[in-house]
Amino acid sequence: MRPVSPQPLSIRVAVPAQDCDQILDILGPVIAAGATYAFPNGADREQIRVWWFDPGHEVFVAETGDQIVGTYFLKANQSGHGDHVANCGYVTDSTAAGRGVASAMCRHSLRRARDRGFAAMQFNLVVGTNQRAVALWRRMGFDIVGTIPQGFRDPEVGPVDCFVMYRTL
Amino acid sequence: MRPVSPQPLSIRVAVPAQDCDQILDILGPVIAAGATYAFPNGADREQIRVWWFDPGHEVFVAETGDQIVGTYFLKANQSGHGDHVANCGYVTDSTAAGRGVASAMCRHSLRRARDRGFAAMQFNLVVGTNQRAVALWRRMGFDIVGTIPQGFRDPEVGPVDCFVMYRTL
Repeated sequence: MRPVSPQPLSIRVAVPAQDCDQILDILGPVIAAGATYAFPNGADREQIRVWWFDPGHEVFVAETGDQIVGTYFLKANQSGHGDHVANCGYVTDSTAAGRGVASAMCRHSLRRARDRGFAAMQFNLVVGTNQRAVALWRRMGFDIVGTIPQGFRDPEVGPVDCFVMYRTL
Repeated sequence: MRPVSPQPLSIRVAVPAQDCDQILDILGPVIAAGATYAFPNGADREQIRVWWFDPGHEVFVAETGDQIVGTYFLKANQSGHGDHVANCGYVTDSTAAGRGVASAMCRHSLRRARDRGFAAMQFNLVVGTNQRAVALWRRMGFDIVGTIPQGFRDPEVGPVDCFVMYRTL
């Protein structure tokens, strides 16, 4: 448990050699829990590193002072003539929840995606029971454009519907 | 232009060392055209090979006699607690269009996905103007569960809506 400093939040491109350990400390528990993201639970630290730092991912960190409190990746959601739609995955350190880290990362990613020339952003599998995330993405301008019946096996609830969420940039 | 033989269609697991050239002969023009699939157009033969034979893809070929007339991959559409939903990509050789190759591959993939324990199958980006594909997937039991506004840049028509299609197994 690392206390969150009162310093302002800043977001920058991740530097793997420098940030990797802190990033994996954040991702590890979230992926192991497997409760809100369709991440490869069961993956070891090295597998998570390879996946998060995929060559197609642009990785960012959110930090207060020198402490990383969140990380996200930005990528094209599809290849070829579908590559104008971006996709992101955001993870906030559990000790920094409720402090606006996710919304700051989302705002940053929307700006960055626009700068890179993407025309829209899409989330492919927002777990329906994750009401906080659904509400946050709605506030960020995303609409539900699809519903995947029982698209996610919630470790506690069982199979739950998921949403495809989308917004233009 | 290779004539399609009258022999019956059979579908089997691809053997890369043996089938790779024929598979790439089929994929190349479709990917270069970029008209119906969000495949990485501009990719060279080796990049297409690496992508089609991704370690997460189970690759199949449809053949009449010793001539491959179609190929498809089967994979989990998501990781972790979303990995009970399968995803496929099918490509038929242009010279064999209209002979039921795609529907035979789809039927095969549904059976194979069920055998592997998948609970459902999802297509993430069915190009809305590809009415033949939409009609085929409907006949195969898929429903439209989402619409991605202008999710695909059709080389001739411009941005077109795409469907997320889904069925249980």
